[in-house]
Amino acid sequence: MKLYDWSIAPNPRRVRIYLREKAIDIAIEEAGYPDKPILKPDYLAAHPHRRVPLLVLDDGTEISEAMAICRYFETLYPEPALMGGDARERAIVEMWERMAEWEGMVAVSEVFRNSKRSFTDRGVAGSAEPMPQIPALVERGMQRVGLFFDKFNTQLAHNEFLAGDKFSVADITTLCVIDFAILVGLEIPETCPDVARWHASVSARPSAKS
Amino acid sequence: MKLYDWSIAPNPRRVRIYLREKAIDIAIEEAGYPDKPILKPDYLAAHPHRRVPLLVLDDGTEISEAMAICRYFETLYPEPALMGGDARERAIVEMWERMAEWEGMVAVSEVFRNSKRSFTDRGVAGSAEPMPQIPALVERGMQRVGLFFDKFNTQLAHNEFLAGDKFSVADITTLCVIDFAILVGLEIPETCPDVARWHASVSARPSAKS
Repeated sequence: MKLYDWSIAPNPRRVRIYLREKAIDIAIEEAGYPDKPILKPDYLAAHPHRRVPLLVLDDGTEISEAMAICRYFETLYPEPALMGGDARERAIVEMWERMAEWEGMVAVSEVFRNSKRSFTDRGVAGSAEPMPQIPALVERGMQRVGLFFDKFNTQLAHNEFLAGDKFSVADITTLCVIDFAILVGLEIPETCPDVARWHASVSARPSAKS
Repeated sequence: MKLYDWSIAPNPRRVRIYLREKAIDIAIEEAGYPDKPILKPDYLAAHPHRRVPLLVLDDGTEISEAMAICRYFETLYPEPALMGGDARERAIVEMWERMAEWEGMVAVSEVFRNSKRSFTDRGVAGSAEPMPQIPALVERGMQRVGLFFDKFNTQLAHNEFLAGDKFSVADITTLCVIDFAILVGLEIPETCPDVARWHASVSARPSAKS
């Protein structure tokens, strides 16, 4: 089994943090360059999903999508539960994780990919064809990021973690979203003190160094 | 427990098909109008996630996100497994379901929401603020839908269903994506005969009438 990773990208970090929290140790290989925003040609040619993270099982099965990779390990090693315990918890974790991805990660990516010169013709991740940048998405993406911060602040005003009183993959994805937003220049707004409190707390976990 | 639904929208249909496949019967209420593309004001005011489907549990917990709702029922009623059985199956199902959502549903939605006059200032679902339409997303969305069809055709050339030999939520989301694409005028390309074969097969299941 091997995990293809890319230490400078926000999505693979979700899996690295997850594995650290679960104390799971597996072989890891860098699929991209450390100093330029492209995946290695050999990797792209060999793996049709063209994105990282990617888990390759011993039978050759390729699992892409960060949360699908986490689901694999969560099923094998249920404790500590990072995707929820009972039905209600699992649903709440999945809801907040998916909202973090769609309302947060996608919005920050829109800002990032449509503004950087190094992403010319790479407006969408994982495409084998050139995908034009759309400058109007930068502004709309920033508006979406603002709504994401407000919504998550409301949830965190009444909860230690996103899904309640237990750390979960919803926190992992949200941490990666917010650190990506900060990298892009979108700081946590002063109007969102509960996001800031939560961010300081989860950033202090050893796994956040992953 | 109650499910808020909207019979004309593609995302709530994912949950309806799932419930029919599992033979689960729960109270359902329409949250939107049958003949115009807006949710009812009372619903929007009462439910902060502002989208459908939405499951409200007996303790008042609100679960949005179609797959989070399915996860709730899958945990309570594991058989027949529609989200995979063992770790490998669960990962493969989640991977294809998420790719169907991100590479399919999001792309078709980009075409739909950024082109329809009735969605002026509603370029993104679930936003409490006006979100401008971006005409360039229509063309890029169509390009993405083309790539989605090609990728899924490659998978279905060697598999009866998306995740292998068993029907799963990956098929449910993909069916809803493709029927939404057809509604928007994006037919299954002639170059994708395996998608067409699969589409005819899953459309013949009683659940597809949901």
